[in-house]
Amino acid sequence: MPDYEARVAELGLDVPDYTTVPYLGLKYGSMKSHHVSGDLLFLSGHVPDQADDTPLHPGRLGGEVTVEQGYQAARLTAVNCLATIRLALGSLNRVNALVRSLNFVVVAPGFVDVNLVANGATDLFRDVFGEQAGLGGRATIGVACLAHNHCFENWLTVEIAGT
Amino acid sequence: MPDYEARVAELGLDVPDYTTVPYLGLKYGSMKSHHVSGDLLFLSGHVPDQADDTPLHPGRLGGEVTVEQGYQAARLTAVNCLATIRLALGSLNRVNALVRSLNFVVVAPGFVDVNLVANGATDLFRDVFGEQAGLGGRATIGVACLAHNHCFENWLTVEIAGT
Amino acid sequence: MPDYEARVAELGLDVPDYTTVPYLGLKYGSMKSHHVSGDLLFLSGHVPDQADDTPLHPGRLGGEVTVEQGYQAARLTAVNCLATIRLALGSLNRVNALVRSLNFVVVAPGFVDVNLVANGATDLFRDVFGEQAGLGGRATIGVACLAHNHCFENWLTVEIAGT
Repeated sequence: MPDYEARVAELGLDVPDYTTVPYLGLKYGSMKSHHVSGDLLFLSGHVPDQADDTPLHPGRLGGEVTVEQGYQAARLTAVNCLATIRLALGSLNRVNALVRSLNFVVVAPGFVDVNLVANGATDLFRDVFGEQAGLGGRATIGVACLAHNHCFENWLTVEIAGT
Repeated sequence: MPDYEARVAELGLDVPDYTTVPYLGLKYGSMKSHHVSGDLLFLSGHVPDQADDTPLHPGRLGGEVTVEQGYQAARLTAVNCLATIRLALGSLNRVNALVRSLNFVVVAPGFVDVNLVANGATDLFRDVFGEQAGLGGRATIGVACLAHNHCFENWLTVEIAGT
Repeated sequence: MPDYEARVAELGLDVPDYTTVPYLGLKYGSMKSHHVSGDLLFLSGHVPDQADDTPLHPGRLGGEVTVEQGYQAARLTAVNCLATIRLALGSLNRVNALVRSLNFVVVAPGFVDVNLVANGATDLFRDVFGEQAGLGGRATIGVACLAHNHCFENWLTVEIAGT
């Protein structure tokens, strides 16, 4: 059995504990962090909220935010997703595979390299869950804005390992 | 068993009857209103179409449309979703839980409070289906436009109660 | 049993062979083309990539791209989806029904007829799979940009026929 929890420790990732500090999306409105139906775990949108409740690198790609900053924001978003997966399933080791993610990047006019930003999230997932389980389907979209001026958001679906 | 139909009556919601007036999305192009697969009901995008076939509060948030108007448009969108859920399942009482929704808000440059608009839809779902079944996962995105100049659209997945 | 492979031949569609030329999305970043979970096939985003690796009709609707060009780009996108469905399932004949698609159209300010563009994809699906299986749920969104300056992308879910 793959040990994704050990891999997270090995990578030194600082995954929030949503059993003590709630999933930050709850401050945005009426929603919950995730829903499990059968073998599928459907996450709410996740954003690069930091522990101090501020966005990492707010703004627009091609404007105030560089590709490298956007990549880091997407990477933090993926770490926050790990927190919700752990909350939902008890352990990352219960993940069978990522199904797919929809990735939103806020852009200024003229910027099109949204895929390079989304890699910050999907590279992290690959590094944690490996080439087989950690590469899901993906789409990435340049959008006009996100709540709280976040520059990135993703919307993830995960397949749960059979019991 | 929860009686969501009674709750809709109690709230005085005017839910369209899509068995007599078809789901309005069909005028937009080649699609159907929903698809059921296993325990999951996947809805098409729903918009704030009114009974007279015109959009409620067309335009852009941060432009022609206020946050309160956007909230009302999102609320009407959720009511239209109830119509499709009823069409698909025969009764709202067959809903087990909302899985999640993706919410699209049309914005003018500088507007970012898209989450406040989406609450119009997700608050209505909570009011009908309650805190347990009615709060799904959620993501909300600021977009450049929607068909017919609508200011809001959502894309909903629902879990059907076991028989 | 419906013979969708015969229908594709009848329509003269030139479907890429992704067993020899990989799904073009792989050049965009860390992802895979699709994921199968139970009876559901979840595709990655597909775009109007041509055989020579260039986008068909790049740019914005209401700008450099006409509605008819956008329609053709969406149609090519749907043909590329057929390639991934065939790769995933071995044959198009294993499709039970389209579940739904999310369609992204890049727009210049003032353009709203995104539904007319998305029809290029959903009309093609209807022509291949028929009125029953080929009309899925749908939503269509006007977005700010897509990678490689593509004008269209879709994100498709398919239901697999029972064995």
